[in-house]
Amino acid sequence: MNLLEPLFRWEAIEGLFSDRARIQAMLDFEAALARAEARTGVIPSSAAPAIASKCRAELYDIAALARATELAGNPAIPLVQQLTALVGRDDEQAMRFVHWGATSQDAIDTGFVLQLRGALECIQAELKRLSGMLASLAEKHRSTAAAGRTLLQQALPTTFGLKVAGWLDAIHRHSERISEVRRRALVVQFGGAVGTLAALGNEGIDVARELGEELHLTAPDLSWHAHRDRVVEVAAMLGLLTGSLGKIARDISLQMQTEVAEVFEPFGAGRGSSSTMPHKRNPVTFAVVLAAAARMPGLVSSMLGTMVQEQERGLGGWHAE
Amino acid sequence: MNLLEPLFRWEAIEGLFSDRARIQAMLDFEAALARAEARTGVIPSSAAPAIASKCRAELYDIAALARATELAGNPAIPLVQQLTALVGRDDEQAMRFVHWGATSQDAIDTGFVLQLRGALECIQAELKRLSGMLASLAEKHRSTAAAGRTLLQQALPTTFGLKVAGWLDAIHRHSERISEVRRRALVVQFGGAVGTLAALGNEGIDVARELGEELHLTAPDLSWHAHRDRVVEVAAMLGLLTGSLGKIARDISLQMQTEVAEVFEPFGAGRGSSSTMPHKRNPVTFAVVLAAAARMPGLVSSMLGTMVQEQERGLGGWHAE
Amino acid sequence: MNLLEPLFRWEAIEGLFSDRARIQAMLDFEAALARAEARTGVIPSSAAPAIASKCRAELYDIAALARATELAGNPAIPLVQQLTALVGRDDEQAMRFVHWGATSQDAIDTGFVLQLRGALECIQAELKRLSGMLASLAEKHRSTAAAGRTLLQQALPTTFGLKVAGWLDAIHRHSERISEVRRRALVVQFGGAVGTLAALGNEGIDVARELGEELHLTAPDLSWHAHRDRVVEVAAMLGLLTGSLGKIARDISLQMQTEVAEVFEPFGAGRGSSSTMPHKRNPVTFAVVLAAAARMPGLVSSMLGTMVQEQERGLGGWHAE
Amino acid sequence: MNLLEPLFRWEAIEGLFSDRARIQAMLDFEAALARAEARTGVIPSSAAPAIASKCRAELYDIAALARATELAGNPAIPLVQQLTALVGRDDEQAMRFVHWGATSQDAIDTGFVLQLRGALECIQAELKRLSGMLASLAEKHRSTAAAGRTLLQQALPTTFGLKVAGWLDAIHRHSERISEVRRRALVVQFGGAVGTLAALGNEGIDVARELGEELHLTAPDLSWHAHRDRVVEVAAMLGLLTGSLGKIARDISLQMQTEVAEVFEPFGAGRGSSSTMPHKRNPVTFAVVLAAAARMPGLVSSMLGTMVQEQERGLGGWHAE
Repeated sequence: MNLLEPLFRWEAIEGLFSDRARIQAMLDFEAALARAEARTGVIPSSAAPAIASKCRAELYDIAALARATELAGNPAIPLVQQLTALVGRDDEQAMRFVHWGATSQDAIDTGFVLQLRGALECIQAELKRLSGMLASLAEKHRSTAAAGRTLLQQALPTTFGLKVAGWLDAIHRHSERISEVRRRALVVQFGGAVGTLAALGNEGIDVARELGEELHLTAPDLSWHAHRDRVVEVAAMLGLLTGSLGKIARDISLQMQTEVAEVFEPFGAGRGSSSTMPHKRNPVTFAVVLAAAARMPGLVSSMLGTMVQEQERGLGGWHAE
Repeated sequence: MNLLEPLFRWEAIEGLFSDRARIQAMLDFEAALARAEARTGVIPSSAAPAIASKCRAELYDIAALARATELAGNPAIPLVQQLTALVGRDDEQAMRFVHWGATSQDAIDTGFVLQLRGALECIQAELKRLSGMLASLAEKHRSTAAAGRTLLQQALPTTFGLKVAGWLDAIHRHSERISEVRRRALVVQFGGAVGTLAALGNEGIDVARELGEELHLTAPDLSWHAHRDRVVEVAAMLGLLTGSLGKIARDISLQMQTEVAEVFEPFGAGRGSSSTMPHKRNPVTFAVVLAAAARMPGLVSSMLGTMVQEQERGLGGWHAE
Repeated sequence: MNLLEPLFRWEAIEGLFSDRARIQAMLDFEAALARAEARTGVIPSSAAPAIASKCRAELYDIAALARATELAGNPAIPLVQQLTALVGRDDEQAMRFVHWGATSQDAIDTGFVLQLRGALECIQAELKRLSGMLASLAEKHRSTAAAGRTLLQQALPTTFGLKVAGWLDAIHRHSERISEVRRRALVVQFGGAVGTLAALGNEGIDVARELGEELHLTAPDLSWHAHRDRVVEVAAMLGLLTGSLGKIARDISLQMQTEVAEVFEPFGAGRGSSSTMPHKRNPVTFAVVLAAAARMPGLVSSMLGTMVQEQERGLGGWHAE
Repeated sequence: MNLLEPLFRWEAIEGLFSDRARIQAMLDFEAALARAEARTGVIPSSAAPAIASKCRAELYDIAALARATELAGNPAIPLVQQLTALVGRDDEQAMRFVHWGATSQDAIDTGFVLQLRGALECIQAELKRLSGMLASLAEKHRSTAAAGRTLLQQALPTTFGLKVAGWLDAIHRHSERISEVRRRALVVQFGGAVGTLAALGNEGIDVARELGEELHLTAPDLSWHAHRDRVVEVAAMLGLLTGSLGKIARDISLQMQTEVAEVFEPFGAGRGSSSTMPHKRNPVTFAVVLAAAARMPGLVSSMLGTMVQEQERGLGGWHAE
């Protein structure tokens, strides 16, 4: 048997979390906020397009923002300063309404949620691809005899198709989990300094609702500045998924052992060759998956460790995420 | 403000995981298996009551089973041996059909799932109680002014009711999560030695379905001996819940500080007194919650670390759970 | 090759951490404290033998103490109460000097350190035994050819002796680590309520020094109630050791695979047999080691997670240990 | 009290782990290897300077190497290819002796050890600075009364100096730990494909010893490709240190609370200001330390989780580090 495709392609997802993408996501929040506040009459209607026109990441010096972030303690402070300055050049009145009633964490968290939405879409697409691949493989090998192994010893016969069906079954459960977690995680963050939206008077709830519509995100009943279960749940779900991918990779790499030789990994030019043994095939693709699976429990643990946050916004916990 | 009840009562749940409860849960599996196999004609119909009548934990020497477990490597091996011997005393024919077609892990995992069902019911009841308590508290203090604090500094005013509403909102999300995870986790384990149910010929699927009905659990499409995402997901969800409880406990214990004195913990006779300062009130209840929250990321991490299991049944990973 | 002994015998160590052993270790602290305070003139010299004579665990109802511990929040409070009552029956004056100037955590931590000393001695003895076993094995197989394997693929030839020498080399490093960590960890805890030993006037330092001599432990410069690096370091070192044992067990279990069959695990009656496949040898010993290695990172992580404790004594962190 | 300096400056250490620094460290290994092999007569003496002259990171395209690394599975493979090509332009004979007898992991691990040496030196310097700062502070405030707090409640009086002395005592222990771990960690990796140095005939041990002298590192008795306790120990020690720094930061941030106001954090222009509350002082420095302390247990756990590696070189575990 020859597995023709990688188990999981992480590359597209990594691109979603570049510095530039992060800046753009926060700017998307600022633009949507201005529109939502204009529509509810909180800020002048002319301010919204003036602000939104400057919410394009290519207008900003990413490296300078990174340096200013270290000094300020978070990326929203220098970004809002630069956005304000840019808006002010063209429209002195609109300048006063940038980031109106919001706090840094509103922009950072909502921006992150927007990035997360893209990532979850990628992951669902990958899971769909993988499910299709595994379903064909299980079908093709439904009668291919294979040794069933328990505790690393041959036990009784099974089929390779049944083994693959077990992998597929797990992947189906992960698809279901991702769908469920999307509903809870893809939610606007919006509360102002201490979660009261006090600066918006009676319009707070309306602005939040409009903001959700602008961004195609759910508007929350309350801000969740110091309640991190939404994002930590995503981390835990991805941890579970990575664990299952690791199990598949472990199975295949054991079946690829020289003495067992039931499965082979595909490899292209330069892939998995060895500096000292150029003739040797190395299961490099699976090394990447197994490495991710080995790191994952610690990463999820770190996220869980940040949940005990203080009061309206905690010290250190949110910064650790 | 005076919090009159503990945040969360773990005691009832602990009782569900005693050695005796564990033995009974495995015996429940064996009794249900016999009935399911009798109904599908796999074993003689007289064998089922003969086996089921010996499936009561009080017939077994728990300490002796514990010693035998160490030698055998798992608790099902000595339990099935003793069950077989007990059945054999009254009915030599039925004796041959004890544990028919099953493997140790089928009994252990299904038994654990039965315990888990009880635990999840307890937890949902506790969450309901806590939600009610928090809802009243939020209502009562909807206008009680309190300092909003960010980064451990007073920031802008909020109300104590809003703070409590934030706690309540998180607890609601956890109730929803527990409901979702129940569907995926409360599933029979049944596969025989390598997951093929080969010993049952063509009746395997029927027996699995009957077994599910007997135990009021879902019958799985496939056995999940080496796919541990079902139980690890439960651990992750409980980890999330514990994190939120820790956040509430942290908030309250900060508000209980001598200098802040916004909230007081209730305490009964002997509770939270100090050996050196008998006059002093200690937030003991919250110490327990915060201790659980501190240990939790490591526990979830350990569970996630067991997911990469080998082949049909792994070495060490399942034992680590 | 046939490995005749288990890699590591944890049983003796487990015995050191029974409830009874824990109670005795705290009573050893109380007896030593009384003697140290009598010798420095802090309490009457007749009080020391009166107190010490009641510091025997068999005089206490362990189950009742366990129940009282839950109510009190820590085990020292009810233990000191019972000790005081027992002393008071024979000597009303001595009764007043039980636990003089100490706080609960002084007894609990010093008691734990005494248990830890026993455990580290056991571990060093086990490492010595294992080193001897591996040294003989490496010597015997210094020329036994074996396949060198990288990334689970056969690569170039090596010898089995060299492989064993690699295991031995790691075990040597762990012995060295245990010796170093002993010096830092085997230290008295003694500070009174907030670490000032104020109740002892000018005699605090002298009592601490005498206490160290009584218990053959180092007397610390300062109490370390909220500085947990001493005990967490021990956990981390044991984690490292468990990781190396896991590596050895993984190597051997891979070599024991049916298709590879280079090494066999010894097994006694009933050990590692299978309920469904009685003819099959299961690497049970190694399952235990691998299970410990899988749980270990989470446990160490939990310990590390308790280090950030508040002020003179923290809330939750110490309880989590 | 006004803390004038940051607790710990991580910036210098981060610089040591740039992509360029990593490439240079691996090139340092290659140059030293050529010299050691020339000195022991394994390669022609003219090859060493020819190779060493190309071992300067500025001759390489870092971004191209990063791309090639993804394809090859590790950074040493493309680096050695480019080094070989560069040497070959000037000296066709020397070209054949690049990386002679070594494997990718020899270069990567030894390079990492060289970076680690720099990092540990930085850390020891920082600990020395911090110790000095804390010693002065403890001296200055030896009689400054402060509330001793346990379980977040005021308990009995202490002095601020004693509190600082407790911090200092922990930092002293960490300095001692770093010194001990240096001896075990700063060790050459050198074993060839499966740890036998077979390609070097009888000269393997001599080359290893010379390599150690060239790099001022210890030459190991055996290669440690799959025995990762050396590097994981460093991670665990840094974890312990981070935990203690977190404890100090937690103490100070609690003392900085608006209601407590015993300590103030220094801050420069733009540092710790808030986008919504420009008048407010935020303990940003301590947020960074607490964030590191919150992430740390998971990171150490991930490192510990990579220790169970297979055979001569494992799959995934080393990649996960």
